[in-house]
Amino acid sequence: MNTTMINPTDFLALVQLYAEHDAALDTRELDRWPAFFTEDARYVLQSRENASRGLPLAVMHFESRGMLADRVYGARETLFHHPYSQRHITGLPRVMAADASGWTVETSLLVMRTKRDALPEVLVVGGTRDRIVQTAEGLRFVSRLVVYDNDLLPNSIIDPI
Amino acid sequence: MNTTMINPTDFLALVQLYAEHDAALDTRELDRWPAFFTEDARYVLQSRENASRGLPLAVMHFESRGMLADRVYGARETLFHHPYSQRHITGLPRVMAADASGWTVETSLLVMRTKRDALPEVLVVGGTRDRIVQTAEGLRFVSRLVVYDNDLLPNSIIDPI
Amino acid sequence: MNTTMINPTDFLALVQLYAEHDAALDTRELDRWPAFFTEDARYVLQSRENASRGLPLAVMHFESRGMLADRVYGARETLFHHPYSQRHITGLPRVMAADASGWTVETSLLVMRTKRDALPEVLVVGGTRDRIVQTAEGLRFVSRLVVYDNDLLPNSIIDPI
Repeated sequence: MNTTMINPTDFLALVQLYAEHDAALDTRELDRWPAFFTEDARYVLQSRENASRGLPLAVMHFESRGMLADRVYGARETLFHHPYSQRHITGLPRVMAADASGWTVETSLLVMRTKRDALPEVLVVGGTRDRIVQTAEGLRFVSRLVVYDNDLLPNSIIDPI
Repeated sequence: MNTTMINPTDFLALVQLYAEHDAALDTRELDRWPAFFTEDARYVLQSRENASRGLPLAVMHFESRGMLADRVYGARETLFHHPYSQRHITGLPRVMAADASGWTVETSLLVMRTKRDALPEVLVVGGTRDRIVQTAEGLRFVSRLVVYDNDLLPNSIIDPI
Repeated sequence: MNTTMINPTDFLALVQLYAEHDAALDTRELDRWPAFFTEDARYVLQSRENASRGLPLAVMHFESRGMLADRVYGARETLFHHPYSQRHITGLPRVMAADASGWTVETSLLVMRTKRDALPEVLVVGGTRDRIVQTAEGLRFVSRLVVYDNDLLPNSIIDPI
């Protein structure tokens, strides 16, 4: 641990970024989601097994903000699925590295999924490894890797995590 | 995100308020619960569906600290129920607004419920929207709205959330 | 709540300690685990029922860093078990006491366990009560008490929590 890597003010800003990001997904304001990323951002949602072996197969793999917007359009307009709501519980962020442009951060993550007239269930349990940079518009993800421990997902993941 | 809305010292105080509030409920020191609220505080526990449609039906709806104390008395003395313990996991607080008197804060929330000789289960997954003010006695909730995503609750909620 | 007990910089250091500790367990870098403790550290993993009654029976009870290292060796080399991964979600830390040497901190804790080809399940839901001190090597646990609400564990706990 190197607590000189970040000061409390910047850490608070990271915490607010995560909380705001998660809220946009959990309230299903999906159109707001791409704006949390830079233009050239990379987003990967992958099983722990594949991530740890360096295998490329991923449930979602996007290489630009435009691809994120495409996915959001698909999730809202194209994909036919049973309606559900999700709720992120992001754990205490761990600052892994810092430099002049931003921070590398890891978090634990639990995402619950609730369908109408059913008990809630675990959609994803895992962690994230994120690269976050300061931009003129505020903090943004340059990359976000979400790794889920549960190889067996309860069923299709429609919305981003 | 507007990180000028709160400074790290005040944010730390909010974090401690949530942690202390949750601990009072989770250790079932229910008598301490009303003291986290102002005299005229409003507390609502409501399904996401009803909250989003602006419908009034709520599992709990209290309009004063006295009503909170009544509920606590009921939970401890009157209501007949299978004993259980609950455990709050409050997510990273998101500061939505700030003014001279206090803050509007939203959190993700997971509350687990455990009965004797049974595996733990999800009691509530959802979020809170809270108004917190500075008082002579410290930070207090003026209003707390707990919205649960799971329309279907595993069974009766006895203690406040 | 007494928010003068800790300043934002020290609180950030505590948060990073928890996040780093949890990550070492969740990535199963168990050899790193004893280093989060002082030489004479005490670690207890106990049911809520036994903890609240002051009963000694505990799933794990170690009285030195050497005993922690023994356990880690056992978990990696000796104990025969079905492979699983765990993931900690540590709640917002609550600072209970502070003095010149360190802090007493309580947290809510959820630990999920995932086996290959199975849906994730709750391994532990409960809380911790920790004594953390400043050392020449950084913050370290002098004692860590993990109390789980679920008397009924899904099955054996192999790795530390």
